Amino acid sequence: MKRYLNPDVSKWKTISRRPSFDFKEIEPIVLEVFEAIKNEGDSAVLNYTSTFDKVSLKSIKVLDIEIDNAIEKVSHELKNSILLAKENIEKFHSAQATKPIYVDTVEGVSCWQEKRPIEKVGIYIPGGTAVLFSSILMLAIPAKIAKCDQVILCTPPNKDGTISPAVAYAAKICGITQIFRVGGIQAIASMTFGTESIPKVYKIFGPGNQYVTVAKQIASLNHVAIDLPAGPSELLIVADSSAKPEFVASDLLSQAEHGIDSQVILVTTYEPLMDQVEKEILKQLNELPRKSIVTKSMKNSKMILFNEDVDAISFINEYGPEHYIICVSNEDIYLKSVKNAGSVFVGNYTPESAGDYASGTNHTLPTNGYAKQYSGVNLDSFLKSITFQKITKAGIRRIGPSIEIMANEEGLQAHKNAVSLRLKDLS
Amino acid sequence: MKRYLNPDVSKWKTISRRPSFDFKEIEPIVLEVFEAIKNEGDSAVLNYTSTFDKVSLKSIKVLDIEIDNAIEKVSHELKNSILLAKENIEKFHSAQATKPIYVDTVEGVSCWQEKRPIEKVGIYIPGGTAVLFSSILMLAIPAKIAKCDQVILCTPPNKDGTISPAVAYAAKICGITQIFRVGGIQAIASMTFGTESIPKVYKIFGPGNQYVTVAKQIASLNHVAIDLPAGPSELLIVADSSAKPEFVASDLLSQAEHGIDSQVILVTTYEPLMDQVEKEILKQLNELPRKSIVTKSMKNSKMILFNEDVDAISFINEYGPEHYIICVSNEDIYLKSVKNAGSVFVGNYTPESAGDYASGTNHTLPTNGYAKQYSGVNLDSFLKSITFQKITKAGIRRIGPSIEIMANEEGLQAHKNAVSLRLKDLS
Repeated sequence: MKRYLNPDVSKWKTISRRPSFDFKEIEPIVLEVFEAIKNEGDSAVLNYTSTFDKVSLKSIKVLDIEIDNAIEKVSHELKNSILLAKENIEKFHSAQATKPIYVDTVEGVSCWQEKRPIEKVGIYIPGGTAVLFSSILMLAIPAKIAKCDQVILCTPPNKDGTISPAVAYAAKICGITQIFRVGGIQAIASMTFGTESIPKVYKIFGPGNQYVTVAKQIASLNHVAIDLPAGPSELLIVADSSAKPEFVASDLLSQAEHGIDSQVILVTTYEPLMDQVEKEILKQLNELPRKSIVTKSMKNSKMILFNEDVDAISFINEYGPEHYIICVSNEDIYLKSVKNAGSVFVGNYTPESAGDYASGTNHTLPTNGYAKQYSGVNLDSFLKSITFQKITKAGIRRIGPSIEIMANEEGLQAHKNAVSLRLKDLS
Repeated sequence: MKRYLNPDVSKWKTISRRPSFDFKEIEPIVLEVFEAIKNEGDSAVLNYTSTFDKVSLKSIKVLDIEIDNAIEKVSHELKNSILLAKENIEKFHSAQATKPIYVDTVEGVSCWQEKRPIEKVGIYIPGGTAVLFSSILMLAIPAKIAKCDQVILCTPPNKDGTISPAVAYAAKICGITQIFRVGGIQAIASMTFGTESIPKVYKIFGPGNQYVTVAKQIASLNHVAIDLPAGPSELLIVADSSAKPEFVASDLLSQAEHGIDSQVILVTTYEPLMDQVEKEILKQLNELPRKSIVTKSMKNSKMILFNEDVDAISFINEYGPEHYIICVSNEDIYLKSVKNAGSVFVGNYTPESAGDYASGTNHTLPTNGYAKQYSGVNLDSFLKSITFQKITKAGIRRIGPSIEIMANEEGLQAHKNAVSLRLKDLS
């Protein structure tokens, strides 16, 4: 890991830079797939699945019997673990429900705000190096709490055309009844336009590689909303002498194993920690099956010393980490000053992987500095807030004249007239 | 206005189609301006302002003295009207504030969610056929309630390089201290990348024409969030015999005057209303200064009869109107069934222009069917929600084993190890 000692603020932007990829390089193939699926539907889905996934599908939709058969392969132990995670995620996301807001801004002018579910949502779960069934829990549970009418799931098929048992189980207990064995760009395009088999949705959620990321961005220009502009996973830990180097190393490694483009950062106010953690990393690394990925992603990773808390805090907010672990004796100061972060983990016994699976918080979070302007997925991600107003005769008498004056000033006489006619009717 | 009598559901998609423009046609010039401003900053801003706005600027930032001088030109009457609007908007948006949510999902596992302001936001206010100072209130007031650190405003200069007095006044009372006389694509590009004069922001808000719409979409691919994918304004009214044709006509005309691409729709369960409203439209139209715009936009507009409420309701939710006026005797049925709409106006004395200016609700709303997946601008548009978790030794003992099992199943051994090391340490 590259080290920086009290870097000057002028260097923070460079230090904060994430491993990037070339959108433009990937865009042409994404546009090609989108165009084909828009025009040819299922037949294009089958073609691209054959080309990209090397799987020749007999059907796109996974049958109920297949789901039930797959679930039989899930161990009792894993089922119980998934159920525990589900319960915690449900508790935390149910608590995020808000009540309608009613305000009489002026006597006779009632305004209110209510939330309504997004009717049709699509969840994408990638295959590849790890099939992240946990993301189904993170997306389907709040979708169900929000009461979205239709929640569909796309996930790439295994080489034999089946889907992962754990995916089938997680989907089943979350009440997802429509699963499609389609991955990558073709999955995102299918949910954007709809095909004979796959329904069009209004919002697409879920992680993915660079192709999926670009596909979601193109989807967002085609009348579909997306959860977040996703990017490689990342973790920033701030730690001092109260932290355990062994734990810090294990957390850094846990994010580094996601992919070769993952980035992990250690910020410390205690210089000896750098050597201690580095030593632990080398020790633990050898035990990891994904050692080759971790070794590569650790090259994107940094250790930064700041003598002063205030500088550490400013840098962290400038970085805006997706995952942010706080392991310092003066944790309150750090907690109060969190401005930009996806999810925050506090103390020695709160590993980042707890939030990935089972604490109850959501693991779909803003990466690449997007924590500066985006929330992670939460209950509201599946809702829209709609405003209402009802004005009485007395109410329009009170605010009508002001509306007339402002509409007139903006040169919008028809806007003014809609009020004038009513005031005239009342006089 | 084109008429449809009980159209079959198969035709709803076509009827719901909005006037569209070609993104691809506008994209090249937007990309050119973005590239130039990214590389050349202020000098490119000055060049494009000269080319597009035919104004040769001496300075980009509006001086305090200029703001104060402009404000002197605002009438007392207009000031009071703006202050009334400000008060109502403040009341309604302040009421939208939420408290942090704390949940112990399991004993020893504390999860919480807190909101934090987006630190830097940019507001764009177009010039052109009408200078909409009211949009400043709609965007700057919630930004201030949210406690955004930096709120900047870009608006195109008048031919003599000045800005509109009402804009200066609205900005001043909302506490905006940084105003830049820059419009169109160059304003959006400047806020996206930052220039010597104009700070980079994290999220861009505000209305605009097709060039601004495409520029905001390009901005959203360049690490900036945007409020909404904007489009031409639109209104749908559902009315029966309890509605006053005169009022209905005035509301339809008020949205139709925004631009030639505006769209207004009348849905009714009472056939005679169609003739009555058409007659009123022809009568009122002649009095309107923006008659030529209205005449053109009325060509995009439709009257639709449904014999059954249930069909009217389904169609309206399929359409997903930006503004939705409900003027029927059985308004409760319609209110309960609102699934997709930006803002809803109830009853004969609630003209849409009330929400544009002074009722207190926000007028920055999803158009073009985006009400299916987007909220209008509200207090949360200026906030991010961040999750936190703190786990005790007892807590990690409780959920740790489940995390290990799930991480193992996903093939993420380093995730598992972060928990295993802690459990080992505790045993």
